[in-house]
This record gives sequence, structure tokens and C-alpha cells, in this order.
Amino acid sequence: MKHNETISLLLNRKSVRKFQETVPDLETIEAIVRAGQQAPFASQLYSVVYQSGGKYAFQAPLWFLICADIHKLRLFMKRRGWEIVTNGVTLLLFAIQDASFMAENMVIAAESLGLGSCFLGECSTNANRMRALVKKHHLPKGVFPVVELVMGFPAEEYPPRPRYPLDFTLFKDRYPELTEEGLTQAMAQMDDGYRAQGYYKNQNIKVKTPGREDTMSFDEYGWTEHISRKWGQWEPSPDKLLEVLKEQGFAFSEEDE
Amino acid sequence: MKHNETISLLLNRKSVRKFQETVPDLETIEAIVRAGQQAPFASQLYSVVYQSGGKYAFQAPLWFLICADIHKLRLFMKRRGWEIVTNGVTLLLFAIQDASFMAENMVIAAESLGLGSCFLGECSTNANRMRALVKKHHLPKGVFPVVELVMGFPAEEYPPRPRYPLDFTLFKDRYPELTEEGLTQAMAQMDDGYRAQGYYKNQNIKVKTPGREDTMSFDEYGWTEHISRKWGQWEPSPDKLLEVLKEQGFAFSEEDE
Repeated sequence: MKHNETISLLLNRKSVRKFQETVPDLETIEAIVRAGQQAPFASQLYSVVYQSGGKYAFQAPLWFLICADIHKLRLFMKRRGWEIVTNGVTLLLFAIQDASFMAENMVIAAESLGLGSCFLGECSTNANRMRALVKKHHLPKGVFPVVELVMGFPAEEYPPRPRYPLDFTLFKDRYPELTEEGLTQAMAQMDDGYRAQGYYKNQNIKVKTPGREDTMSFDEYGWTEHISRKWGQWEPSPDKLLEVLKEQGFAFSEEDE
Repeated sequence: MKHNETISLLLNRKSVRKFQETVPDLETIEAIVRAGQQAPFASQLYSVVYQSGGKYAFQAPLWFLICADIHKLRLFMKRRGWEIVTNGVTLLLFAIQDASFMAENMVIAAESLGLGSCFLGECSTNANRMRALVKKHHLPKGVFPVVELVMGFPAEEYPPRPRYPLDFTLFKDRYPELTEEGLTQAMAQMDDGYRAQGYYKNQNIKVKTPGREDTMSFDEYGWTEHISRKWGQWEPSPDKLLEVLKEQGFAFSEEDE
């Protein structure tokens, strides 16, 4: 496989959950966000709010909220004598992509400056968290939180986490029928990989299963079990999230507009 | 502002729309996608389909379709005795993010290998395009196209495109009231920047405005006008996109499930 310094940086990245106390300076923050801005975008449908010098998730000294933003779009369109007519689903799809491209560039820029980071996706499943972020940071209509990102100088070191085999990810010409054997291999690569790193055992993390007996030991518990317990129990109703998204100006039916 | 090789790479990236004929080899393709996989993810809710050796958009010799994918999740959850109960909005939010983080890493990895690329977002606004991609590439239920990405060795060279001023993007603690002056500056930075590069004039690109008289010359036409004409005219109804998303297993109301 081809290698160079950037590819090594990308392949060695891992999410960091233990940080030194040193607060990254403004020059560093600005370099990271400027690099984020230069990602390819549909229409720069993003904004970033940050806080530094406190203790954020995992005691990180720096926190970003990467937002989808059509507020700025609406403002300059008004100046030019236009208004947004595009439907809320298209706006949502493009705005999440723009925000995510920027967020990933920020992760890579940070990594290159010796900083570690960790995404926090809670606001995509917990409508209360999404609304609290909207209120606390005064996000206007047209703006909603896509993902939180904490950052700082790492106080832990470990190898990159496992990923699916490439042949379970990259398909030529068409999406294939996935075989039982391919599935077995992909699950094993994830589960054995996480267990070899002692990931769940060392942190004593297991997703609880209220109403189901849980007799699984950490010798058995792996990535596929952990992920299954999340998606098998997380919020069944979209209603609360749709309500916040609608409040923020992303309506999914024509009568909502 | 802090600099290093990676940050220069990120800051100098630009979308490429003219390519050499050379077809990148499989080793290169695999390096790019492996680097993509190592992005931080909620649950690896992605897949990539590719085609090479033909002539794709902008005559590029290599084409990727980056997909949101909960099909693989569903398969391994079934093996583990679980089924997905999480609502379609949460699935959509996380899956687009996972696919986008991977896509942006692929763009950066490609750039580091001397390849240029360009995202094609049509499937997020054109439901027919989304459905055609689903059919042509046999995407199963649980998988939908997020963004197309063409790639190849560049046959054009120009400076990076303008972006909003940093103070119109990065906000401390809270989203501010945006001032008229700040808006004027941000619009000028984008419009003057694109005009200085002759971007629209050289390509003779203007978004048509059926039903509105268009007397604007290329000396006036800039980024904010171009973008306004898109969002001011694109598809008002979400219905067709919601229909395809629902067919692919992302339902937005409980009765749809």
C-alpha cells in the first residue's frame, strides 16, 4: 500500500479521552479552524462555537461545537433579493456534510499539531442535549449542533483502533451480496482487535441491557456486542429530534415550512 | 498562524475539474480508502463503491460513491441476537457523519498522493439521481448515496478558493448577533475572491433564473449570487427524497417503520 507522511498521520489517528492540562493557544485554535474551512463544501453551511480553559468532556481543555448553518446563507440571500425555497431534507443533507467535512479537517489539522481529539455524538440521539446546546450557545434559527469535539494534548498513547477489513468496505462497481463468511471475518477483526487492546475491559465499559440478563464477560464482550447494545436500545422515536430540527428551521414536510 | 506540512496541504486543497488520463492504480485506491476508514466514527456506518478506467464527471478516470450504510450493522446485530430499534433520524444523522468523515479523509489522502478530486452533491437534491445510483450499484435496503467523488491526477492548477473570514465562522462561547458590517465583509471576501480568480467568467457559468430577468454581467456575478440562485430555486418539496430514503430504510416517522 502507498505511504507518505500524511497517510501515516491519517492511519495512526485515534480518539483521545485523557488530556494534559495545557490549554492550546488561540493561534493553534485558529490554525485548526482555518484548515477546517478549506475543506470542499456545498455552500459553507457551517459554523463553529468554541470554549477553552474549562474542563470539558474527558477533562479536555478545549471544546468545539460544529454546527450546520443556513442562517448565514439566509442573511446573504436576503441582501441579494433571494429567499431559500429548497426543502429541509436537502438543506439537512448538505449542511451535515459541510459541517462534517470541516470537522474532519479540524481533527486532522489538530493531529498534525500534536493534539488529540474525540467526537461526541450525543446530540444526534438525545434531543434534550441538542436543545440544551442550542439554548446555551444562542444558536439562531437555521443553525443546529452536528457534533461536539473535545481537544487537547494527549495524556494517553495506544495503537489505532481496528476497522472493518477493506473488502467489507470498498466494493468495485456494485454493492455485493455480503457472504456469511465475510461477515464472520469482519466481526472477528473488530471484536478480536478491540479485545486484544483490552478496550472495554480496561475502562470497565459495558452497555447495560435493562430487561435482558447480561452474563457476558469481558472475554466475550467486543465491538459488535457494544454497538449492538447501543442501536438495539437507543431512542426509538424520532419525534423529539424532529421537533428540535423543525424549531431550528429544518422542516421535513411542506406543511411544516 | 501555526503551520506545518499537513496544514499547508489542507489549506492548499482545491476541487479539481480537469484531469489527466492516467488511471490511478489499485494500490493507490486502497491506500486512500484505508486512510478514509481510520477517521473517527460513530459505528462505521459507511461503504464505498468505486469504478475506474472509464470517463466519469469532468472526464475523471476514477469515481467513488460514498454511502451511508446500516445494512452491515443490521447483519451483525442479527448475528448477535439484536435488532435496530433506533429511530431513522438518529440513524440518518450518524450515518451521514460517518460517511462524510470517511469522504474527507479520502480527499486529504488523495491530495497527499498528488491526486485531485471533486465532490458531486447532486444526489442530495435530486431524488432521481439518488434512486438511479441505488439501482445501478445495487445498494441494498439500509444503504443510500451520500456523495459522489471523482478523482485523478490534476490537469489544471490554480490557487485555493476563498472562504468566509474566520470571524464569520469561529465564535467564542456563543453564536453572536451577526452585524450588517460583518455580513458585508464576508460577502465581499467571497465575491471579490471568486471574481479575482475569474471563476465564473472563465467557465462561463451562471445559474439560470427562469421567470426572472437576468442582466447581471460577470463583473457583478460572484459566489453569493451563484449560491443564492441555487438555494433560491432548487427543489422545494422534500417528498421525493423522503420517498427514496424511506425505500432505503431510513424512515422519519414511527408509522413508517
